Amino acid sequence: MTPYFTELFGNPSSIHAVGQQARYALDEARDRVARVLNCRAREVVFTGGGTESDNAAIVGVATALQETGNHIITTSVEHHAVLHTCQHLESQGYDVTYLPVDSDGIVQPDAVSRAITDRTTLVSVMYANNEIGVVNPIPEIAPDLSRTILFHTDAVQAAGYLDLDVRKLGVDLLSLSGHKFHGPKGTGVLFIRRGAPFLPFLLGGGQERERRSGTENIPGIVGLSVALETANSQREESSRHCAALRDRIVDQVLARVRGSRLNGHPTQRLPNNANFSFPGVEGEPILLGLDMAGVAASSGSACSSGSLEPSHVLLALGQSAEVARGSLRLTLGKDNTDEQVDYLLDVLVDLVERLRQLPSLTTAGS
Amino acid sequence: MTPYFTELFGNPSSIHAVGQQARYALDEARDRVARVLNCRAREVVFTGGGTESDNAAIVGVATALQETGNHIITTSVEHHAVLHTCQHLESQGYDVTYLPVDSDGIVQPDAVSRAITDRTTLVSVMYANNEIGVVNPIPEIAPDLSRTILFHTDAVQAAGYLDLDVRKLGVDLLSLSGHKFHGPKGTGVLFIRRGAPFLPFLLGGGQERERRSGTENIPGIVGLSVALETANSQREESSRHCAALRDRIVDQVLARVRGSRLNGHPTQRLPNNANFSFPGVEGEPILLGLDMAGVAASSGSACSSGSLEPSHVLLALGQSAEVARGSLRLTLGKDNTDEQVDYLLDVLVDLVERLRQLPSLTTAGS
Repeated sequence: MTPYFTELFGNPSSIHAVGQQARYALDEARDRVARVLNCRAREVVFTGGGTESDNAAIVGVATALQETGNHIITTSVEHHAVLHTCQHLESQGYDVTYLPVDSDGIVQPDAVSRAITDRTTLVSVMYANNEIGVVNPIPEIAPDLSRTILFHTDAVQAAGYLDLDVRKLGVDLLSLSGHKFHGPKGTGVLFIRRGAPFLPFLLGGGQERERRSGTENIPGIVGLSVALETANSQREESSRHCAALRDRIVDQVLARVRGSRLNGHPTQRLPNNANFSFPGVEGEPILLGLDMAGVAASSGSACSSGSLEPSHVLLALGQSAEVARGSLRLTLGKDNTDEQVDYLLDVLVDLVERLRQLPSLTTAGS
Repeated sequence: MTPYFTELFGNPSSIHAVGQQARYALDEARDRVARVLNCRAREVVFTGGGTESDNAAIVGVATALQETGNHIITTSVEHHAVLHTCQHLESQGYDVTYLPVDSDGIVQPDAVSRAITDRTTLVSVMYANNEIGVVNPIPEIAPDLSRTILFHTDAVQAAGYLDLDVRKLGVDLLSLSGHKFHGPKGTGVLFIRRGAPFLPFLLGGGQERERRSGTENIPGIVGLSVALETANSQREESSRHCAALRDRIVDQVLARVRGSRLNGHPTQRLPNNANFSFPGVEGEPILLGLDMAGVAASSGSACSSGSLEPSHVLLALGQSAEVARGSLRLTLGKDNTDEQVDYLLDVLVDLVERLRQLPSLTTAGS
């Protein structure tokens, strides 16, 4: 990325040589992303992040098809970038169905089929859940949709671990976020199938073939494209590595921490995610204790950290608010080691046990 | 910016130590920007660029005040990020007044006053025009607005050359774009006065105090804040330097290129912008000729380069479409030198003369 911050600083919309150098980098980055998604380069739109991609996908399709219908189907476990956008559209007169999930957190394809009405224009189902890591059967949902209903998936959490081939997935739109696969923050991708009805969300100079205005963030886009290519090429190796560590964490936590439970489907999940509940213990003191021991963990999504609201995802799985507040999300990366897992397990087992012996501290943590 | 791409890669919403390092950098950057704008830190919202800032300002205020009124006042020479957003709101039932400008390109404060109705909720007038560089009398417009009408200014082109003190300007919202003051692309600022009615444009995890969702682009925000602080501290020196070069360009072009004219007010303009028309010559061959000689110039805004549409700004000044297509925008920076100006002048004078002697080439360029 570095040269594009300094000597190659041009604006790709400029017709002079400095601009055309930037244009060349942009075209190369688009080709790189298209190869991972198995789509045409012109179907790749660069955005300012996963949130913008999700907002643009939902608003862009809903408004483009508002003469056809006003019904959107999504799920109760989506990221807030999808849920809050759908809630906003409800305030504008759209109807939204929020499909439930089963107790493992999976969306059932036939539940999607049953929710379709003759006014449905868009279905948005996330590929992998950001909190509990469960993977939805996207390719099984697609065939139930008629050609006039567009299918969007938030694949932000899937990149680097699952196949992003949009033809195999059968989706019309797909969102990615750069920093989820070791790319830079503030970058994202929205795949828009050629011919899909779509109105732009960000309006202005008409960049990205009139689908996303704003001067393209060339260093960020270059970084995103290389990070995606790298993460995707290492996908099998990363998945194998993380799954082995993850399996050991799950087995050991369930065996050594009494009453602990794994949230989400036991196998139909990302290889790098483990999400636990520890009934009787609040989540926050666990996070603080882990942090003091040098372990960076989360209670759910980072976006909601600091919030005292229980996770909407765990509530959708049928958990009580009390149990949902005690959850712990551990996310692994390709650089994590066996030794780190051993250390984590020792710290965590001891920590939960100590917190259970200190009811006053546990309460203070809420 | 560099460490925030690598060892300091945390998400500022995470409560663990890695996240809190990022939170600290974010807070520092916000203070830095607030000092330049003379506002409170919490009035600074970081966005993905100037286009997003403009979109968010206009949609955010219009929707927050939709129960109060549905009338927006702007001008015919705004950036497309403002104009196209206003046109979109018209399609949603809002009324928009596009004020004309005088032949110098300046918006008259009393024209704003006269356009106000009891349904007006928002006035958006750009601080400095991106194509012709004229500076609008923002502090003279503000007092005519009642407290229930919000005042937004697109200050994207002004940063680094004009005073951005939001109290002196009297604005409720102000947009900035990082790469306009040597900061990184893909970053922007939206100042939102404390207490100003505003609904968020990007919806999701509720970052930026619920005003702009999406994981904060920490390296970009750090870069933007330092670039803004630097550009602002060098503002007088840069202005003096650029104005001297600019004045020489204007004097020499008007003297040496017959029929040439300066577009926009002769003195009430940014020190680093000169915009000319050369009747009888198309703009594109001028740009190509300058580019071949190593001079990076523009026909108007980079966003619209490659478009064959004449500039909406020059049309608003009363120029014919034919003359408007032959415009040349020269923008200077603090690193430009006297020698470069001498070289530019020799190349440009010769180029326009040669193009005028080749009517067939001139026509082909259209």
